[in-house]
Amino acid sequence: MDLQFSDDLQSLREEVRSFVAEKAPGVSRKAGVRSPETDEIPLYRQWMADLFEAGYLGANWPVEWGGRPNRDPLEDFVVEEELARMNAPPTVGQFGLAAGALIDFGTPEQQAKYLPSIRSAEHLWCQLFSEPSAGSDLASLSTRATWMEDEQTWIVDGQKVWNTNAEVSEFGYLLARTDPDAPKHGGISAFVVDMKAPGIEVRPLREMTGTTDFSEVFFNGVRVPAENMIGQPGEGWKVATQSLVYERAGLAKNAAMVERALDDLVELAKRSRRNGRPGTEDAAVRQELAKFRVRLRALGWGRYTTLTDTLRGEFHVETAPIGKIQFSELNLDIAAFALELLGPEGLLVQGDPASEEAGRWQDEFLYARAYTIAGGANEIMRNMISERGLQMPRDPKGR
Amino acid sequence: MDLQFSDDLQSLREEVRSFVAEKAPGVSRKAGVRSPETDEIPLYRQWMADLFEAGYLGANWPVEWGGRPNRDPLEDFVVEEELARMNAPPTVGQFGLAAGALIDFGTPEQQAKYLPSIRSAEHLWCQLFSEPSAGSDLASLSTRATWMEDEQTWIVDGQKVWNTNAEVSEFGYLLARTDPDAPKHGGISAFVVDMKAPGIEVRPLREMTGTTDFSEVFFNGVRVPAENMIGQPGEGWKVATQSLVYERAGLAKNAAMVERALDDLVELAKRSRRNGRPGTEDAAVRQELAKFRVRLRALGWGRYTTLTDTLRGEFHVETAPIGKIQFSELNLDIAAFALELLGPEGLLVQGDPASEEAGRWQDEFLYARAYTIAGGANEIMRNMISERGLQMPRDPKGR
Amino acid sequence: MDLQFSDDLQSLREEVRSFVAEKAPGVSRKAGVRSPETDEIPLYRQWMADLFEAGYLGANWPVEWGGRPNRDPLEDFVVEEELARMNAPPTVGQFGLAAGALIDFGTPEQQAKYLPSIRSAEHLWCQLFSEPSAGSDLASLSTRATWMEDEQTWIVDGQKVWNTNAEVSEFGYLLARTDPDAPKHGGISAFVVDMKAPGIEVRPLREMTGTTDFSEVFFNGVRVPAENMIGQPGEGWKVATQSLVYERAGLAKNAAMVERALDDLVELAKRSRRNGRPGTEDAAVRQELAKFRVRLRALGWGRYTTLTDTLRGEFHVETAPIGKIQFSELNLDIAAFALELLGPEGLLVQGDPASEEAGRWQDEFLYARAYTIAGGANEIMRNMISERGLQMPRDPKGR
Amino acid sequence: MDLQFSDDLQSLREEVRSFVAEKAPGVSRKAGVRSPETDEIPLYRQWMADLFEAGYLGANWPVEWGGRPNRDPLEDFVVEEELARMNAPPTVGQFGLAAGALIDFGTPEQQAKYLPSIRSAEHLWCQLFSEPSAGSDLASLSTRATWMEDEQTWIVDGQKVWNTNAEVSEFGYLLARTDPDAPKHGGISAFVVDMKAPGIEVRPLREMTGTTDFSEVFFNGVRVPAENMIGQPGEGWKVATQSLVYERAGLAKNAAMVERALDDLVELAKRSRRNGRPGTEDAAVRQELAKFRVRLRALGWGRYTTLTDTLRGEFHVETAPIGKIQFSELNLDIAAFALELLGPEGLLVQGDPASEEAGRWQDEFLYARAYTIAGGANEIMRNMISERGLQMPRDPKGR
Repeated sequence: MDLQFSDDLQSLREEVRSFVAEKAPGVSRKAGVRSPETDEIPLYRQWMADLFEAGYLGANWPVEWGGRPNRDPLEDFVVEEELARMNAPPTVGQFGLAAGALIDFGTPEQQAKYLPSIRSAEHLWCQLFSEPSAGSDLASLSTRATWMEDEQTWIVDGQKVWNTNAEVSEFGYLLARTDPDAPKHGGISAFVVDMKAPGIEVRPLREMTGTTDFSEVFFNGVRVPAENMIGQPGEGWKVATQSLVYERAGLAKNAAMVERALDDLVELAKRSRRNGRPGTEDAAVRQELAKFRVRLRALGWGRYTTLTDTLRGEFHVETAPIGKIQFSELNLDIAAFALELLGPEGLLVQGDPASEEAGRWQDEFLYARAYTIAGGANEIMRNMISERGLQMPRDPKGR
Repeated sequence: MDLQFSDDLQSLREEVRSFVAEKAPGVSRKAGVRSPETDEIPLYRQWMADLFEAGYLGANWPVEWGGRPNRDPLEDFVVEEELARMNAPPTVGQFGLAAGALIDFGTPEQQAKYLPSIRSAEHLWCQLFSEPSAGSDLASLSTRATWMEDEQTWIVDGQKVWNTNAEVSEFGYLLARTDPDAPKHGGISAFVVDMKAPGIEVRPLREMTGTTDFSEVFFNGVRVPAENMIGQPGEGWKVATQSLVYERAGLAKNAAMVERALDDLVELAKRSRRNGRPGTEDAAVRQELAKFRVRLRALGWGRYTTLTDTLRGEFHVETAPIGKIQFSELNLDIAAFALELLGPEGLLVQGDPASEEAGRWQDEFLYARAYTIAGGANEIMRNMISERGLQMPRDPKGR
Repeated sequence: MDLQFSDDLQSLREEVRSFVAEKAPGVSRKAGVRSPETDEIPLYRQWMADLFEAGYLGANWPVEWGGRPNRDPLEDFVVEEELARMNAPPTVGQFGLAAGALIDFGTPEQQAKYLPSIRSAEHLWCQLFSEPSAGSDLASLSTRATWMEDEQTWIVDGQKVWNTNAEVSEFGYLLARTDPDAPKHGGISAFVVDMKAPGIEVRPLREMTGTTDFSEVFFNGVRVPAENMIGQPGEGWKVATQSLVYERAGLAKNAAMVERALDDLVELAKRSRRNGRPGTEDAAVRQELAKFRVRLRALGWGRYTTLTDTLRGEFHVETAPIGKIQFSELNLDIAAFALELLGPEGLLVQGDPASEEAGRWQDEFLYARAYTIAGGANEIMRNMISERGLQMPRDPKGR
Repeated sequence: MDLQFSDDLQSLREEVRSFVAEKAPGVSRKAGVRSPETDEIPLYRQWMADLFEAGYLGANWPVEWGGRPNRDPLEDFVVEEELARMNAPPTVGQFGLAAGALIDFGTPEQQAKYLPSIRSAEHLWCQLFSEPSAGSDLASLSTRATWMEDEQTWIVDGQKVWNTNAEVSEFGYLLARTDPDAPKHGGISAFVVDMKAPGIEVRPLREMTGTTDFSEVFFNGVRVPAENMIGQPGEGWKVATQSLVYERAGLAKNAAMVERALDDLVELAKRSRRNGRPGTEDAAVRQELAKFRVRLRALGWGRYTTLTDTLRGEFHVETAPIGKIQFSELNLDIAAFALELLGPEGLLVQGDPASEEAGRWQDEFLYARAYTIAGGANEIMRNMISERGLQMPRDPKGR
């Protein structure tokens, strides 16, 4: 057992920092995972192409498609952590799962057609999975893809929701039901869809943040050619779940993000006044900040555990939900306490000249709720933990 | 001892309900105390004039200026409660304190000039008390009014903040420092200012709610005639505090408001789904709603206590802060739980067609924070309670 | 409407105080409702006889049995409140319900036999209702009373639990099932039992407080004469529920009790040290104490509401559960915070010379848990509130 | 980097389990770190001697005094974890620090005299550091050791408190002030004292648990020979702090302990009934248990972090306080929730036949408070974290 990061990995950290300092574009920044301004998309494309070229993205791809030879998962961890620490601009689009699906299930023609333009960021992708009526049970999706024998094409009808970057993406990675008579998980197929195809309408949602980071996507008789299916008919669920391993867990990133937030909160507390003294001399504030620190350390420890699991080739079904709950609740509580420290100024938002740090904490606070809901509400996560982590009986749903 | 409402008061309740049903304008509504849309101001003026005329506003004024003869404080309580239960449109402007100051300290000329147009709602008023640097210590205000002997006029310079309705008001009720050498509370005077006077600039603030309900008011060499002073020079603090008794405590209104919110939350819980069942059949949801109910009843009880105190002619310094804390925290927690029940839809706001009840709960939630901060942050209120209610030593501020 | 206490009631307060000062015995005291030391029973008997004689107990009885002519419920309220404020010794035994049952359902012979010795405290009574398997559903009791036709007597077999004062009482007020074939509520009858009868065994329970305030009572072929039935066969449930109105609600007492506890907690905070300063100068301590004060006032307000309901002849099914939850949780949190302030000394109990106030707060803390459980756990109370106060669907028990 | 436990370490786990199964004495057990029954002391001595002989205790001692050659800190971790998982009987006495002090600062004579009898458990040791007036500032101790030149001996006067096992120990490891004129930390010296010496009185404290796990120790003119000083005069603070590294951090043990508690709580929840269903089917119970699980995993992760730090030779000043807070709060909350699940039975304690699991959870609950206070109250720990972990200004104690 040895927990030392090797010298090579330490050097990699330095490299990533230099890379970010040199290459990161000066795009506008907000809390969380946000949709970029449309006019900044070219800057993001260049940034992503640079990340791929440097091997900081897509290292886990096959070498023939640009993956890194002799790749070490620790490198990915270090890269992710340093990018987050440097507060580097995020990437745009859900290319991870799509690329994974193409790598594992795509035909050579599909791979040749789509993978290079993902690496060059010429094409952005969105993911078209969630549906309004499915709730947290993804597999109960009802968007239909019907085979038109005479036209040799699929016709897609239905609605997706909570998609990010749908309005700027060239391609979508779609799950649709192709066999309504098959069992729930067995009748789904995976497709590549051209987001500019007739019949696709993207409606941005209006959110509490004052921005539109998600959208609904409507399919109305959209024609999808036969060669756009990924894998076999009815194999869509398998394609989707297997491609999940290409998605970065993100805990390293989240932990680094919330660590930065707590650092900033302490600075804010120093500037604030409580009962005529700096907030950092007020016993109630000190106790609160220390409680955050305790929770932050738990999160940081969890990050290494995930890494350890990966290195051991182990997978614990409750690790991700636990990390997600810890991160999202801590992130929310830190932002809420920042608003409390700000007092009346905490009500002002970005754009108001009197707002502290240009409304940064308000944006953090408003977006923080999305984290507690997105990707499975914490209440659902806890139910999952009680079943899988604590071996309690399955929840008697609908009984 | 008798706690029955008399038959006359019960009749009054009926009258108020009929009045609201008949007269209330169909203005757009939002959570909390909000600035009206400019184009709806005429509707609000008519509404306020109707309320004054019916005796539902201003009953506590002297009879010669329109107050009700043989007025009973219980009537005000009943009126306030029924208006809130009917969700009647709010009034606009801070006329209460201004009118009180004019009644108690104004010259006959001032009273004749300003009071009738308050009752007719021809003129709206705003209050110009809070300042950015004063924090919760109102009396440390630094806006200056300087006497120009040769021009026989006051010149006002400085800045106010957290003003409501400043941009639609004809007049402002201003506190300014006229004697910088006097003790803190002794150097302040009260004025009427014409909000259209040169040198006054109103800058709306941008808030988390996405609306602008507060503003900053800048004074840059504003000329205020000598006859606009209310009371004597240096008497401003006394004028301001004494006029507070004309301000409705508002607990009856707040309690009715949050009661309506909890009713609606229970309805929302019935429509929501948890683990395949209606939320109202989920043990965790039920426990949470019952906790809100317990807190609501405490608030309701407090409302009668305030009334009782009024009838006895008693005043308990901690009653208002306690009611304020209870109301604002319950109001916030109810709105936050509504968002939790809504799940992902809870992120959408007014204007998005997919939002539940047109973003009502999001607006409630966003505004609810203002209540915990406005009029003294809850943390400051608790400090006051510890000093005045629990006779603990004064907080060693700045020592 | 008039909320003033009359001059007569104010005089009554004075009388009660003088009475307590003069008559209250110097018995040992503990937190909550506790079983007295056996050797102090004579002192308690005298104390109760004095209370009855002064009209401070049993004022609501028929005048012929010693009740007060022209009784005013406000007097009871005032008496209860003042006794609690003076921290007067409690009464012993559950005579309230038994007396009520005898008054409303007893034969003239039964009334003549039992009521006078209750007033003289010659006889103490215990209540024999709860059973181990019945949980919170009292009516599902399974203790049997079987009629022996040839001997013209009832034979009782079964077990009761959570009884107080069973081991010192002369008589018990028993509910037993006399018709196992009748519907649950219909097959129960009420009895007077001689606690010295052969076949009755009282086993004191050992509790966390280190004392034995409750006991189990076992019935093994206990003979109960026919004339000991209260009311008719099968009428027991009606007898029991109707007699509940003779039981004092206790909220006035509880509110006064917890008010005294908070006063003492503030004193403790003054003596304690936090970061080198008195606890009352520590911001975190101050905020905590103020939160308790807010909750205390809610409780105090609720007390008057109960009184108001009584005066109006109204009954709100959720008032008692809400008061019970508020009281028991506040009482527990105050005691727990006292232990936190005490630091290591908080671990010591009565009997240790180094313990603060002879282990008073530890005893408060340990007993406080009993309050959150006794008379229906708070979680069950909240479920009841969600059903009856919020009109939510009945809990799908056992479905 | 490699996080796999080696095959040797896995074998060690097996060995420890076999060892415990074979050797552990059948002593009575209670929650937490408790004083053994006096008549079980011989069994504990044998158990400790066996642990030393097997190398499961004292592996970190010099080889000449019985330490393990080529010792690996991971072995200690594995041993500690497995002992806790097996719920093996604890050791008795504070020999760790004393032995460390003797190893690093003792004379060869002292080492030869005391170390072997520690390994054989012939002699038990107690630690005599804490004092009543010193609070959390250990170095402000006032117990005096005065040098009697003519008798060539030290005379000790003063009082210690919160000592464990003082009444069964043969020797004590004492800190006393030998130079009252030196700076606070500089005037302290360390001694070995014979606990049977005249003038030493041990007074057991009475605690909420109903047991006496701590005691006070009074020194009244106790003669301590010159050769009993450990290290040089005035070097006591250095001796004490350096010997701390010989004390096991205990986080591995605590994490394993609370993991077992949560397992048992889930079993209890399965047996309990809520609304007519098993507690594990009640949404509120499930959410609560899942929250505990999230916190447990954080604790488990922290355990490995401590290990990692040790292996890296790093020391983070906040790691121990954070682990201590997490452990003690989780431990307390689990026990409190167990009592809630138990309902009325939760009030009964060990010795009552009707108590669940012989009062196990009540004992856990009562002792759990000691963990939140012992070794520095959590509130003090958080203050330390805010200073050292978050680099906030030192608390303005007593300024």
